[in-house]
Amino acid sequence: MAIFGYGDIVLYSGRGCQSLSSEISSRLMVPLGGCDVIKFANENIFVRLHSSVRGQDAFIVQTTSSPVNDNLMELLIFIDTLKRASAGRVTAVIPYLAYARSDKKDQPRVPITARLVADMIQVAGADRYITLDLHAGQIQGFFSIPGDTLTAFPLLADYMREKNLDEAVVVAADLGFAKKARNFAMELSLPVAFIEKRRTGEFSSALTVIGDVKDKDAIIVDDEVNTGGTLVNAVQLLYDYGARNVYCCFVHPVLSGNAAERLGQLPITEIVTTNSIEIPHEKFKLLPKITILSVAPLLSGVINRVHEGRSVGEMFKPYHGYS
Amino acid sequence: MAIFGYGDIVLYSGRGCQSLSSEISSRLMVPLGGCDVIKFANENIFVRLHSSVRGQDAFIVQTTSSPVNDNLMELLIFIDTLKRASAGRVTAVIPYLAYARSDKKDQPRVPITARLVADMIQVAGADRYITLDLHAGQIQGFFSIPGDTLTAFPLLADYMREKNLDEAVVVAADLGFAKKARNFAMELSLPVAFIEKRRTGEFSSALTVIGDVKDKDAIIVDDEVNTGGTLVNAVQLLYDYGARNVYCCFVHPVLSGNAAERLGQLPITEIVTTNSIEIPHEKFKLLPKITILSVAPLLSGVINRVHEGRSVGEMFKPYHGYS
Amino acid sequence: MAIFGYGDIVLYSGRGCQSLSSEISSRLMVPLGGCDVIKFANENIFVRLHSSVRGQDAFIVQTTSSPVNDNLMELLIFIDTLKRASAGRVTAVIPYLAYARSDKKDQPRVPITARLVADMIQVAGADRYITLDLHAGQIQGFFSIPGDTLTAFPLLADYMREKNLDEAVVVAADLGFAKKARNFAMELSLPVAFIEKRRTGEFSSALTVIGDVKDKDAIIVDDEVNTGGTLVNAVQLLYDYGARNVYCCFVHPVLSGNAAERLGQLPITEIVTTNSIEIPHEKFKLLPKITILSVAPLLSGVINRVHEGRSVGEMFKPYHGYS
Amino acid sequence: MAIFGYGDIVLYSGRGCQSLSSEISSRLMVPLGGCDVIKFANENIFVRLHSSVRGQDAFIVQTTSSPVNDNLMELLIFIDTLKRASAGRVTAVIPYLAYARSDKKDQPRVPITARLVADMIQVAGADRYITLDLHAGQIQGFFSIPGDTLTAFPLLADYMREKNLDEAVVVAADLGFAKKARNFAMELSLPVAFIEKRRTGEFSSALTVIGDVKDKDAIIVDDEVNTGGTLVNAVQLLYDYGARNVYCCFVHPVLSGNAAERLGQLPITEIVTTNSIEIPHEKFKLLPKITILSVAPLLSGVINRVHEGRSVGEMFKPYHGYS
Amino acid sequence: MAIFGYGDIVLYSGRGCQSLSSEISSRLMVPLGGCDVIKFANENIFVRLHSSVRGQDAFIVQTTSSPVNDNLMELLIFIDTLKRASAGRVTAVIPYLAYARSDKKDQPRVPITARLVADMIQVAGADRYITLDLHAGQIQGFFSIPGDTLTAFPLLADYMREKNLDEAVVVAADLGFAKKARNFAMELSLPVAFIEKRRTGEFSSALTVIGDVKDKDAIIVDDEVNTGGTLVNAVQLLYDYGARNVYCCFVHPVLSGNAAERLGQLPITEIVTTNSIEIPHEKFKLLPKITILSVAPLLSGVINRVHEGRSVGEMFKPYHGYS
Amino acid sequence: MAIFGYGDIVLYSGRGCQSLSSEISSRLMVPLGGCDVIKFANENIFVRLHSSVRGQDAFIVQTTSSPVNDNLMELLIFIDTLKRASAGRVTAVIPYLAYARSDKKDQPRVPITARLVADMIQVAGADRYITLDLHAGQIQGFFSIPGDTLTAFPLLADYMREKNLDEAVVVAADLGFAKKARNFAMELSLPVAFIEKRRTGEFSSALTVIGDVKDKDAIIVDDEVNTGGTLVNAVQLLYDYGARNVYCCFVHPVLSGNAAERLGQLPITEIVTTNSIEIPHEKFKLLPKITILSVAPLLSGVINRVHEGRSVGEMFKPYHGYS
Repeated sequence: MAIFGYGDIVLYSGRGCQSLSSEISSRLMVPLGGCDVIKFANENIFVRLHSSVRGQDAFIVQTTSSPVNDNLMELLIFIDTLKRASAGRVTAVIPYLAYARSDKKDQPRVPITARLVADMIQVAGADRYITLDLHAGQIQGFFSIPGDTLTAFPLLADYMREKNLDEAVVVAADLGFAKKARNFAMELSLPVAFIEKRRTGEFSSALTVIGDVKDKDAIIVDDEVNTGGTLVNAVQLLYDYGARNVYCCFVHPVLSGNAAERLGQLPITEIVTTNSIEIPHEKFKLLPKITILSVAPLLSGVINRVHEGRSVGEMFKPYHGYS
Repeated sequence: MAIFGYGDIVLYSGRGCQSLSSEISSRLMVPLGGCDVIKFANENIFVRLHSSVRGQDAFIVQTTSSPVNDNLMELLIFIDTLKRASAGRVTAVIPYLAYARSDKKDQPRVPITARLVADMIQVAGADRYITLDLHAGQIQGFFSIPGDTLTAFPLLADYMREKNLDEAVVVAADLGFAKKARNFAMELSLPVAFIEKRRTGEFSSALTVIGDVKDKDAIIVDDEVNTGGTLVNAVQLLYDYGARNVYCCFVHPVLSGNAAERLGQLPITEIVTTNSIEIPHEKFKLLPKITILSVAPLLSGVINRVHEGRSVGEMFKPYHGYS
Repeated sequence: MAIFGYGDIVLYSGRGCQSLSSEISSRLMVPLGGCDVIKFANENIFVRLHSSVRGQDAFIVQTTSSPVNDNLMELLIFIDTLKRASAGRVTAVIPYLAYARSDKKDQPRVPITARLVADMIQVAGADRYITLDLHAGQIQGFFSIPGDTLTAFPLLADYMREKNLDEAVVVAADLGFAKKARNFAMELSLPVAFIEKRRTGEFSSALTVIGDVKDKDAIIVDDEVNTGGTLVNAVQLLYDYGARNVYCCFVHPVLSGNAAERLGQLPITEIVTTNSIEIPHEKFKLLPKITILSVAPLLSGVINRVHEGRSVGEMFKPYHGYS
Repeated sequence: MAIFGYGDIVLYSGRGCQSLSSEISSRLMVPLGGCDVIKFANENIFVRLHSSVRGQDAFIVQTTSSPVNDNLMELLIFIDTLKRASAGRVTAVIPYLAYARSDKKDQPRVPITARLVADMIQVAGADRYITLDLHAGQIQGFFSIPGDTLTAFPLLADYMREKNLDEAVVVAADLGFAKKARNFAMELSLPVAFIEKRRTGEFSSALTVIGDVKDKDAIIVDDEVNTGGTLVNAVQLLYDYGARNVYCCFVHPVLSGNAAERLGQLPITEIVTTNSIEIPHEKFKLLPKITILSVAPLLSGVINRVHEGRSVGEMFKPYHGYS
Repeated sequence: MAIFGYGDIVLYSGRGCQSLSSEISSRLMVPLGGCDVIKFANENIFVRLHSSVRGQDAFIVQTTSSPVNDNLMELLIFIDTLKRASAGRVTAVIPYLAYARSDKKDQPRVPITARLVADMIQVAGADRYITLDLHAGQIQGFFSIPGDTLTAFPLLADYMREKNLDEAVVVAADLGFAKKARNFAMELSLPVAFIEKRRTGEFSSALTVIGDVKDKDAIIVDDEVNTGGTLVNAVQLLYDYGARNVYCCFVHPVLSGNAAERLGQLPITEIVTTNSIEIPHEKFKLLPKITILSVAPLLSGVINRVHEGRSVGEMFKPYHGYS
Repeated sequence: MAIFGYGDIVLYSGRGCQSLSSEISSRLMVPLGGCDVIKFANENIFVRLHSSVRGQDAFIVQTTSSPVNDNLMELLIFIDTLKRASAGRVTAVIPYLAYARSDKKDQPRVPITARLVADMIQVAGADRYITLDLHAGQIQGFFSIPGDTLTAFPLLADYMREKNLDEAVVVAADLGFAKKARNFAMELSLPVAFIEKRRTGEFSSALTVIGDVKDKDAIIVDDEVNTGGTLVNAVQLLYDYGARNVYCCFVHPVLSGNAAERLGQLPITEIVTTNSIEIPHEKFKLLPKITILSVAPLLSGVINRVHEGRSVGEMFKPYHGYS
């Protein structure tokens, strides 16, 4: 039966996040829609839906992790397909939004690709978007369609809280993350410290810890880990400054290149992340100390609320501080 | 000095067609603009121009051949960069436009990706486009910005004419190309024949030649060759029907998968194509009988005319029949 | 009761297709909406609806046959009226879309009027369109609103199939129609032949039949017949090549100028077409051998499905080959 | 040489105002651009320009008088052609804009066609417009592109002033024109009177003159005359109220239906109008007492100023009161 | 329960019309939505809704009277908030629309701010608008979203009719209002007269009454009263011409500057207006002879009909003459 | 003479920044354009330009400081006026952009007003913008028109560097400013410290200094100072932690409410800011220790470069770190 003008939920999964989509599908008790997603010999991606979505409330779950541009293009083609197939409403569910770090001109003659991506999603025909922990909350403003930007930091905080670390400190590995790290620390009732990186030459830089980490369990927190380079340096530095254990918490396990290998070898107590990006098996097995929290309950809950016109805001504290 | 409101030509090359761009650059006597085009570890593409393009008449040459989605995304990011760097005008020069075969809904619930791509190019900020032998002329209408769609078929025809084949026939390997094949034949004052493919079962089909090819030199003509499957069948069929030699002419050498290998082994007299797509060396060496005509004179001529506000139409016959 | 956010179907007819609209109205069991459509003394067209359409699911049926520009303008004004009268959704049902042959720049400095028309329909405020056998399937991509492009060729094929012609051949009178003619032939399990027209001078041209028609019933197939000139030549030619009977099948009976007279005098067995365009009585009586199949069941079926959010695709074979 | 980023003026004429365009062409000393404007047998209008307009400053002069919808469509197709032919700037010069009276919803469920027309002109690709005495000045706001709305009332006023009518009064035949009539009267230093029309039944109405016309020369002024019905009644009424002579001044001689005949038979001293609309010869000869003032000097002056970036405002008094 | 695709009515009030909104709220039996509307120390306005509006049918009532720009900005921010909070539909209810007199370029180099305001309302995300007696009906055409422009003149007319003034005349104080004054007169079956203002020098002007007011009750009618200057002059003039009583009827009591003081001192029988704008208490007490008719029944009736998809037109006479 | 398609610079000043505009005017040697900017009795703002801007390169300098909404509306009306007056290009020069802190949804049901403002500037008709130290660099991405976002921090850094403070530390008073503070520190080769604010109850919070300030000159740096509340607390705290002197550097002196008074009474060595916002005289005299650096050289330099098509980037270090 139609709620608010749309038919039933129909749920599709791009090839970037099959496991997560399956989990969402189970929780929603809505089967994944049948479709062919083909990459032809000429690399052109093609989508064909197996059954009608006319008037339905369509959700396409597609993360834009590796292969980034293929996954992004697949998302856009899916949206176009759903729109032209006369879906009642098309919501792009993007657990991890690529290009979010290209969000401003911080030097002359560079692009603002995150705005471009938002425009592409809109021009393809999406009516709404749902995403998770954008690198900068302002990226919400790159969209003129409404959307729901969720945060998985409370998930990470809940997990860490249960460890009852008695002498701990939250550490921002990057000053751009200072405020969110403070908020994370506040949720855990812990102090906060910062790592300052300062270029000392064209190819060298010096790191300093500002704040007190000595004899403490340091919890490095960030939105994503890419190559792991920052993390490698940070972990070493924290031990140098006297930290007794180091934990790493981040939402998006991008883990580019040999990041998994590097992280696997770090003298780190535990890595805590989510399945916003699916870690391929060969990388996963290099990470014995990793804990992956599922964002499926979060995303499926939001999809349900969006569909039924119930508040999404009430799932979170009014001011959660992660946007 | 400014002509028509823009400064000088500034010319950039995407990574998809470096050789062609160099050739265009030489012909225009305009150096390729310095820039960094980086694919970060997380696969996000990033562009940074080395010098100011403010007010200039910018041309970005980027083909969208393999890797298709990376090249397409790079093109869009280049356009955004040029727009935000305040170029006076941004022209996307796209020798080969991917996704052109996804140009209509010929079955339910499929995308029209070619329109999506046109919209993406516009929303990124291109003021104009230049392209070559679109799969369907109607794709021009997918753009609302003005553009120049050129054809390289006269190049191919000129080359074939000089062979003075006395008993030849032009053959369309696909009925969708019948009309353009007739026009190609007309330019060469040759008759035309068609290969009809008809499905006979779910996985089988029968081919027939309609028209007379016996004891003739058959010139198969098409806009692009992808996997080469159609061509392999066509060549064999034409010999079966009594053709004495077979030539293949096509503009865009997509040559996906093992197409180069297949074509290299065909009992074919000559393959004639263009450099709208750069054939990688390892494929090229499998194709001893290939002749590659350069579209650089064509593209550089048009860029010059666009810049100077001179007629592009006068480079072609009024009705050339390849749109 | 509202389905998918819109109220009941309300159905209006432009003055271009009153009979067809009445037939659709009967089949839908929805009366045509009362309205004044006035062409003032100054030729300005004016529309006034007699009752409220607020929130309703409005369909305006208007073909764009002669008088073409009046009918087109009337369609646009109807759409604007429905939008500003706060219809819940406005669907333009256009059995025949004019200007569809002006769909590409095949020579310099000409318009792409079909894209212009699509833009005009959108800017007037249509949410969707329904149309029938576009000259080129790509015109779907000229719209960014979703729509349903239907085909009446299966209707024509069904009708011809029942004749059980034992030795017949399908003939494309224009090479641009070669592929669709092949598909039509495939549906009837018949071979296909082509008529090639080649200019031989500024005002002269030569016609050739490619393929075998001797001693066969030839079925000429095309999307529309305009002046009938092509047809007159084709029929004569087919008899010259030994055809024993000639049938003509086409969807849109444009029949401009004295086309009806010319066709009426042709030595033709039967003309089979549809009522996508209403043939005026004075023309109709010149065509004794014409059979008109109604597209009203098709259009009313689709309107119902669009309204109820049921699949339109399942009315057709997945790949019907007429787009 | 390029002024302000565009090349030379290129000037085209639609078929709606050939004489006026020729006069403009002579005054600008710019020949009319060669072009084919064809109405095919199927009534589709087609435009083809004979030479390149790339980068030029294109002006298309087309009035939208009878045949209104054909002329409007021709204007739009011309604009699309010029845009896609890469004109540097496209200015639509529309001496008379049709549908201007359909400018508001003054009853439920009617269109605002004037806004629709403005949107159509923009979506076709016009960069600017020039027009003359819009029915309501607010129609300027229907455009978001810049434009120049000119007035020919000073022309009419200058002409009337030279008659040195000693006892005259300006009369508004419609109360909607009261303010502009007052302004016209002010320019001539004459008093003003009004004709009030009041419906007295469904098909009857009563007319009253408000103000003093007895023993005076009455100068009826209006923006356009359509069927002439209002005028016929007004002239009789003014004589009934004791006017000694009646003059009629209006900018746009729409003269629909038998208006010319009716006006020709009126006991009127002189009709003064302009060539914003070309009066066909057979109508013209019915109007012995008509004086036609040319708007060509006005339009060519403005075209020149637009091209050269000089003030258009200084051609008029700062507040002329006719918008 | 959802009607036509939206949830329940949710009703918000801007700070510009709290009393009117409360009255509407009572009539609709829908409580005003809780929200914080804050003007920070830096004058930035901020809106926060207390509960979810997801999928609901949201109406924001905000007049744009003094402080005009603050109220306008607050309206826009409210719309943005509702859109981004995923309201199903956002309707801007604007009893008085500011800037409506800046609706055309009646002199060179001035803005058309009313169009700008319409664009701002649309770009902020409104789906519909409801407003009351626009200065010019054409402003409806500045919006491309649908809307309902209502009139309160029948309210004023009903009130005046009950006075049974036996010898009365309706007077337009401005010639731009002549036609609407005639319509108001027609509703009351009264004659109409006009005041003509004519500039006689740079800073002086002369007023004349055209029509008969002697020994009559004069009812001045206008859409709004701003500084009251026109009215002060008109009242005096009417007495000079022999009127025995003067009434003033207008919809929007803008009453800028010391207008209330001036009007309070006028020898006027009664001022009749509406609460489209809330008259502040200190002004109200200066106006002993004022009667304020409430537009709340009108606005709440329309909101209900918009929500339920019932005709708004049937609340008015088909052609009411006030647009 | 026209450079890049536009005429000469024409420069207008809104009423929000008359002194700054005058200084820019002097530096550019371009007089401020004559215009009337009127706030009518009804508070509607009106703009009228005194002379033609047709084809010229127009710059309107208007800051959006107090009165914020009036100044913003005035800016938009100016842009509309310039566009409709046919300026060749319109650049909005906005030294201080209001609403920049409303740049993301950091809690449910709040607006993103900064995006709304960007959209309003674009819909009004600006072709470009120039602004200074946006609160978040991402706001650049809210615009799809190109623009130049400049920074005045190097100005502040140069001024501070000349003091040769031997034992100093840069302090970020807000963790959201941590990264930019680090960059400011890096330019001065100084260490950096942070003030952490943590809510301890609904109405209370605790402040901590993280990093070393003891016996140092503390330089608090921020983008703007609004009420001064943060600053008052920070200064006290720094002295508590042993700082020997405190300096305050910020670009935008918003100084709302009694901020000037509060700052004037602070035990602070020097306040260093710019004239991006004009401090009214009565506030200025409360601030004896203030130094105001002019951004006029910066803005006039950029205007010149934008006009002449020369690089703006080369005025800054490639990566300046303040976006």
